[in-house]
Amino acid sequence: MSDAKSSAVSVELRLRVEDLYGQYIACLDEARFDEWPDFFTEVCIYKVMPRENYDRKLQLATMAAESRGMLIDRVYGMQNTLFHQPYYQRHIVSGLFVRGLEQAEGAQRILTQANYAVFRTKQNALSEVFNVGRYIDTIVEDEGRLRFAEKWCVFDSELIPNSMIYPI
Amino acid sequence: MSDAKSSAVSVELRLRVEDLYGQYIACLDEARFDEWPDFFTEVCIYKVMPRENYDRKLQLATMAAESRGMLIDRVYGMQNTLFHQPYYQRHIVSGLFVRGLEQAEGAQRILTQANYAVFRTKQNALSEVFNVGRYIDTIVEDEGRLRFAEKWCVFDSELIPNSMIYPI
Amino acid sequence: MSDAKSSAVSVELRLRVEDLYGQYIACLDEARFDEWPDFFTEVCIYKVMPRENYDRKLQLATMAAESRGMLIDRVYGMQNTLFHQPYYQRHIVSGLFVRGLEQAEGAQRILTQANYAVFRTKQNALSEVFNVGRYIDTIVEDEGRLRFAEKWCVFDSELIPNSMIYPI
Repeated sequence: MSDAKSSAVSVELRLRVEDLYGQYIACLDEARFDEWPDFFTEVCIYKVMPRENYDRKLQLATMAAESRGMLIDRVYGMQNTLFHQPYYQRHIVSGLFVRGLEQAEGAQRILTQANYAVFRTKQNALSEVFNVGRYIDTIVEDEGRLRFAEKWCVFDSELIPNSMIYPI
Repeated sequence: MSDAKSSAVSVELRLRVEDLYGQYIACLDEARFDEWPDFFTEVCIYKVMPRENYDRKLQLATMAAESRGMLIDRVYGMQNTLFHQPYYQRHIVSGLFVRGLEQAEGAQRILTQANYAVFRTKQNALSEVFNVGRYIDTIVEDEGRLRFAEKWCVFDSELIPNSMIYPI
Repeated sequence: MSDAKSSAVSVELRLRVEDLYGQYIACLDEARFDEWPDFFTEVCIYKVMPRENYDRKLQLATMAAESRGMLIDRVYGMQNTLFHQPYYQRHIVSGLFVRGLEQAEGAQRILTQANYAVFRTKQNALSEVFNVGRYIDTIVEDEGRLRFAEKWCVFDSELIPNSMIYPI
């Protein structure tokens, strides 16, 4: 079994990491998409991909970005150029743990994992399960706050939800 | 981005707040409804309303109460006067964070937010997504324990679930 | 109201308990079933049963084991002898709290409870709600790590899911 490394981080840091997830999902679920790229470092990896591809180390992703600038472009696209039915998202995150710590260029990187479930609510419809999977993330201290250097959203359904407009 | 204010409360207080939510959903999901009003202060606000109304500052609510007495009445009603098919509820709460702190009449008020998902299980039926949204709460120390001075349950579906009998 | 006893355990121990749940659901959801029995003590109770039976103190369980050896047998069975459509599981755990502490044979036993929701994803299908309920657990320090001495998975749906192959 891969041991949890949560004991390697202080209680204070661990609670800050929990806060980061709370803030992240609140930002998305309140549709404050303009603030979303600010959760990532300037150079970053953001990928949403099916579990099958992740396990086979295939690179095909439903969404992918390698910088905050690309995330900003994505937000612009979803707000201005994509034609879609609007829907609400509601994230649940659970089972957060620290996978390990890394040193990279003098900075500490916190490796985390957590399960997530996202519910979708379309207009005049009931809420439904939209996407479930896990976050496999790397978090760094950046400009006095915690940011994602990497966020992999690895979802369980092999069906690629082509209607996935908003970030996970 | 609205910063998390979780660092403004001690680790001990924060864990007590987490416990409050754990106890609250255990109370509801075990159908110990008689104990539910005791989670609120004598004068309180309890509202369950769709997100559309909350965002537009409309007051129309699916459930509303302004005192513990009204909550007790509600419990009496649901147990004695409402005709309904019984169902089980199961709450999941996630992404809890402290929005801020307030001083009111010499007492500290802890402003919190969290996402929730409630599953419903009817007799001889499978469990299903019932209601998802967020809690926007105000918590105070009251008679040696934490209680909700305000609890807003703001749900995503614009469909008002007329079959919502039990509290969220 | 049954008070939360979380304050009876140190912050460090509480976070270790949270980690245990994070590791447990990660193990199951990544289908590392060979590692699953190691989350339990040599002599243990593992039961999955409907709420109706639990509340009436009926012993009929969907899954039951009384030792790590029986759990190992179960894993062998699910991997080698049961014919079934494979599916992915995704666990969400929420509302964890400490119900109390017990002393048994000189060792401290931590009594916990938490809600859970499990989503299932079959091949070429969307994710769906599979099983929701609560964990009623007893945790002990064993060989330098935390393990479950008892794990009761009490689910809400009275329909016995005959297709429940993997552990909850």
